[in-house]
Amino acid sequence: MQDKITIAILGASGYTGAELIRLLLAHPHARIALLTGDSQAGKPIGEVYPHLAAKGLPDLVSLEQAQYAGIDLVFCCLPHGTTQTVIAGLPAHVRIIDLSADFRLADPKQYAAWYGHAHQALALQKEAVYGLSEIARAAIAKARLVANPGCYPTCALLPLIPLLKSHVIRGEGIVIDAKSGVSGAGRAARQANLFTEIDGGVSAYGIAAHRHTPEIEQALALAAGSEVALTFTPHLMPMSRGMLATIYVQLAEKNTADDLRKLLLAAYAKEPFVHILPQGIAPATQQVRGTNDCVMNVFADRIPGRAIIVSAIDNLVKGASGQAVQNMNLMFGFEETIGLQLTSLFP
Amino acid sequence: MQDKITIAILGASGYTGAELIRLLLAHPHARIALLTGDSQAGKPIGEVYPHLAAKGLPDLVSLEQAQYAGIDLVFCCLPHGTTQTVIAGLPAHVRIIDLSADFRLADPKQYAAWYGHAHQALALQKEAVYGLSEIARAAIAKARLVANPGCYPTCALLPLIPLLKSHVIRGEGIVIDAKSGVSGAGRAARQANLFTEIDGGVSAYGIAAHRHTPEIEQALALAAGSEVALTFTPHLMPMSRGMLATIYVQLAEKNTADDLRKLLLAAYAKEPFVHILPQGIAPATQQVRGTNDCVMNVFADRIPGRAIIVSAIDNLVKGASGQAVQNMNLMFGFEETIGLQLTSLFP
Amino acid sequence: MQDKITIAILGASGYTGAELIRLLLAHPHARIALLTGDSQAGKPIGEVYPHLAAKGLPDLVSLEQAQYAGIDLVFCCLPHGTTQTVIAGLPAHVRIIDLSADFRLADPKQYAAWYGHAHQALALQKEAVYGLSEIARAAIAKARLVANPGCYPTCALLPLIPLLKSHVIRGEGIVIDAKSGVSGAGRAARQANLFTEIDGGVSAYGIAAHRHTPEIEQALALAAGSEVALTFTPHLMPMSRGMLATIYVQLAEKNTADDLRKLLLAAYAKEPFVHILPQGIAPATQQVRGTNDCVMNVFADRIPGRAIIVSAIDNLVKGASGQAVQNMNLMFGFEETIGLQLTSLFP
Amino acid sequence: MQDKITIAILGASGYTGAELIRLLLAHPHARIALLTGDSQAGKPIGEVYPHLAAKGLPDLVSLEQAQYAGIDLVFCCLPHGTTQTVIAGLPAHVRIIDLSADFRLADPKQYAAWYGHAHQALALQKEAVYGLSEIARAAIAKARLVANPGCYPTCALLPLIPLLKSHVIRGEGIVIDAKSGVSGAGRAARQANLFTEIDGGVSAYGIAAHRHTPEIEQALALAAGSEVALTFTPHLMPMSRGMLATIYVQLAEKNTADDLRKLLLAAYAKEPFVHILPQGIAPATQQVRGTNDCVMNVFADRIPGRAIIVSAIDNLVKGASGQAVQNMNLMFGFEETIGLQLTSLFP
Repeated sequence: MQDKITIAILGASGYTGAELIRLLLAHPHARIALLTGDSQAGKPIGEVYPHLAAKGLPDLVSLEQAQYAGIDLVFCCLPHGTTQTVIAGLPAHVRIIDLSADFRLADPKQYAAWYGHAHQALALQKEAVYGLSEIARAAIAKARLVANPGCYPTCALLPLIPLLKSHVIRGEGIVIDAKSGVSGAGRAARQANLFTEIDGGVSAYGIAAHRHTPEIEQALALAAGSEVALTFTPHLMPMSRGMLATIYVQLAEKNTADDLRKLLLAAYAKEPFVHILPQGIAPATQQVRGTNDCVMNVFADRIPGRAIIVSAIDNLVKGASGQAVQNMNLMFGFEETIGLQLTSLFP
Repeated sequence: MQDKITIAILGASGYTGAELIRLLLAHPHARIALLTGDSQAGKPIGEVYPHLAAKGLPDLVSLEQAQYAGIDLVFCCLPHGTTQTVIAGLPAHVRIIDLSADFRLADPKQYAAWYGHAHQALALQKEAVYGLSEIARAAIAKARLVANPGCYPTCALLPLIPLLKSHVIRGEGIVIDAKSGVSGAGRAARQANLFTEIDGGVSAYGIAAHRHTPEIEQALALAAGSEVALTFTPHLMPMSRGMLATIYVQLAEKNTADDLRKLLLAAYAKEPFVHILPQGIAPATQQVRGTNDCVMNVFADRIPGRAIIVSAIDNLVKGASGQAVQNMNLMFGFEETIGLQLTSLFP
Repeated sequence: MQDKITIAILGASGYTGAELIRLLLAHPHARIALLTGDSQAGKPIGEVYPHLAAKGLPDLVSLEQAQYAGIDLVFCCLPHGTTQTVIAGLPAHVRIIDLSADFRLADPKQYAAWYGHAHQALALQKEAVYGLSEIARAAIAKARLVANPGCYPTCALLPLIPLLKSHVIRGEGIVIDAKSGVSGAGRAARQANLFTEIDGGVSAYGIAAHRHTPEIEQALALAAGSEVALTFTPHLMPMSRGMLATIYVQLAEKNTADDLRKLLLAAYAKEPFVHILPQGIAPATQQVRGTNDCVMNVFADRIPGRAIIVSAIDNLVKGASGQAVQNMNLMFGFEETIGLQLTSLFP
Repeated sequence: MQDKITIAILGASGYTGAELIRLLLAHPHARIALLTGDSQAGKPIGEVYPHLAAKGLPDLVSLEQAQYAGIDLVFCCLPHGTTQTVIAGLPAHVRIIDLSADFRLADPKQYAAWYGHAHQALALQKEAVYGLSEIARAAIAKARLVANPGCYPTCALLPLIPLLKSHVIRGEGIVIDAKSGVSGAGRAARQANLFTEIDGGVSAYGIAAHRHTPEIEQALALAAGSEVALTFTPHLMPMSRGMLATIYVQLAEKNTADDLRKLLLAAYAKEPFVHILPQGIAPATQQVRGTNDCVMNVFADRIPGRAIIVSAIDNLVKGASGQAVQNMNLMFGFEETIGLQLTSLFP
């Protein structure tokens, strides 16, 4: 185990890149040596993100100029669809955590169907480990390439995987109604994401068509041991961070909501980041703002045979950069919670 | 038909009272003659609501001091559980629109079960008409006492009633995941509703236990011709106004989401306030801010045999005071849209 | 006086254009016949602004395709710097209200100095009337071309002009510290105006360099009868609408803050849109949301010889489209308040 | 120097108490042993603040039940006016950082004039050190009782003290226009601070009458060596955290805004928490969210002889609990930045 690892962040000018920097600056074993940002190459990061000025960070360089000698770990924060050849071209000595969706789907056909083009790095895709930390610890620790999960999948999978694995809920008829802060949409200048367009309103989007759907289904099928098809509706909230998933499930015979709650309590009893709230208490994203935590709870539905699960994360932390750091800790043998023992910024 | 009716608002110091005033000030046939507000009695309304100063409104009086001579219509905006004896004591010549939940449930047993005490005005309860304007026009027109629907019921029932009536969806397994602005919680000083507690976060509340549930089920059972039990989860959004319901339904045999959409288009073709959006366009509460409109749409789910319906209103307008004015128009023979031809305050 | 005037809006796809449409839809004497929007030409306005769908509005056309036969009035909502030749090319029979800054400065040298290029329509510039409705009623009524005031100037000038005219305050040392909602920045997709960049924070911008400065100084010099140079600092607030100006002034000899307040009370006693609040009550933008009102008040400073004035408007209404409609009413002989008797959308 | 100090927080159920807990949980030399909260006594802190559950914190006790044996340091977060006898009654071995205003004013007459009653602990008042960390390091290090500065004073004094000390600006005519997030108003349930009342609007309050005025003037008089009377207007912003002060000053003869900027650069060159931004860049509260930083800059005014200073902090951190921890570090000989090397939570 090295005391300090040397890190590159590709695509550091986006929100997940900036969030990685925030977390790594407080990490005792991390040294940020390389930041790329093609459209901003040559600028100090403090010009792109004033809150990151005066932190001793390297200037942004273009991807082309990036030198990987001495780099132990690359975080790849590039947009979906652009990382496959980039990652395929990285030298063999670097390990990689990819925050895009490019290596999350194991089935090339499914990738092609949802993303509209054939995968460009099939060999790597096979090798990539889906990095839901609590579920795949051992594999992550040994992986060269970790596909960091999406925010919606993380929020939904953490409660659903143990339940499906134990067959206390049915694989059919799962409905995930998810609510996300706007930072998930990234920092690109888009009219739809202007303050004036978002403030004071909520809306649904990508109804029955969001690309995180196959990612969730793939992980649930693995847990259940059989195909899972589900309903997933994302919504946009007038807030910057935070994600809440309200999940409607059908109980497998004789189980109760309380059984589900107890099973989750047991499954996550020793987990530092996953918390089942006291009976009857509803999760709120305010509890996890800026942290790597996932809080969840289970409620009996009025309709017999059904239960309601609510789960909350910070989409930029446990839903992206925080889980990436957690995976880094696993990969390099650091204490898993290092750099991530955070308290919610409330209020 | 009178040219101007004379109006009293009981409980004018709450948000639905203030919203009624906003709408009635622009109504050519309305004259506000009496405003009550027990805790603020004696004050000009402009002291309680600065935006209502200098509008020629009467000062607040206590409920006890209220005089009903010459009053044609009473809007009752008092808290749930307090209106039954008040309304029972009103003189026979006044007609009443009650914005509380007190007269919405037809079954006294169900009222007692959900509200924890026996109903205090059983005779009136029988007489009350459930005032979902688009559905009960004729009865509303003749009613002495209209029970104005709740915000969540209005948002869910407008799409669901025509679909259940036509049996194109099944009565079982309906899931209503609803998102509301904070104004629905009223103006009482509560820590949970402070800006600092709400801003930047979302949460679920009243899971499987919200009192609007039996109200929705009662109306759906009437439409379906058989009992309906459903799943209803309300959520609190960091915004003042607006409500979005995402509704998951099972299609009755052979129907498609498109069939549902066409049925709603036909059902609401002539309605001034209910709009089915173009194919594929998702409703947003920004479209209806400050208006009496309900916008909705239907989407095919990925799971065969299911559809997703999204519906949006302004909880204070179509979900409360606007629908109350619409009902007033029906009761007094005014053009139904008078005073309600509003355009969303966007941005 | 015509019963209905026929209206064109050039640049209808921006926020001031959309706000004009909102107001004109409720105006009994207005008929919108032409909407231009170059980048969106050919689209129904409801595609660009979903809240304006189903209102019977014409589709967007390009500026080039615009036909002015039958048009009585053109509202020009184009970006600063682009309207001069457009307006110069309009047929003689149309009257024009320009919401850009292009015709607000009377001195061509000053225009060139602040906007970086020579004015392209000097003859028209001479003819243009600066349309601060309360101050220039008679001239506006007769004008062919009205230069609609900027939002910051409107908010600051309404209190300052009567005070400087009466010489109860000094022309030197005026400090205007102004706070604006984000809609003033328009609907163009800019990273700086993303929800995530704005939410939860405030900042100053254009310090001592904002182009509204000469506009304010020009109007104050006219009122004072001598040159006025002032300090003006705009700030961006995490809200969509609303503007508050906190103005620090020096009293001319022997005057008190109370004298100033009384003078404003007298000056605006008969004005329908300008309200001096009760003694000691501080203005808030919440009171004027969506309305054409300006609320203001005067406070004694702790430092002898100084006073603090606070003034609030909705930047999109009295600060732009509402004042434009008020000017339209003046130009066409309609009751000045028609279409503008609005109550704040609060909460 | 002890490795770990044992800490009590009196009034832990308010926002400054919760923020102290957040910061101290990440402090390697702090151990929280006692939390009081009279109205919530007996509850786990996680019931009062869900985000503080599962952190190994003691339950809340009443002030009366508090035991100070073994306590090294008391943070007092009680409301203004309630701490004087409490603090006077603390055992001699504890050191105290008081976050209320009770010990900030050195002159008992001024205290009585602004707070409406005679000071209850005059001897302690004399002993108290005004804890603006950067200015009073040596005295803080030795103090038993530190009066932690108010948020507005901290934000205004950090730029103004070095400038007045060097006589590059004049003591007369200083105008401080300050904008604050709502958390400064505390967690008490007040109608005025409901989400619905605050969202989407800004307002001024306490105009020329805010109790932070004498606190600012006292510190500036000390710096200038002569009395200072100033204009101070606080404003409420629709955001939870953050404070921006826009300060208008008159230059002492021959000085320029650039001279002021250079002087501040020199004065704070070695300070870890105070940052003068690059020339021309305006501070924004987004840069300091959740951090102990103060960012500032100086701008030339258009009026000769004047300058504009803008300064930003997080009101709950550098404006309250963060500075309290900084003072704790000074008092106990820890590295001043320990526990405070934070990066803004942006977005």
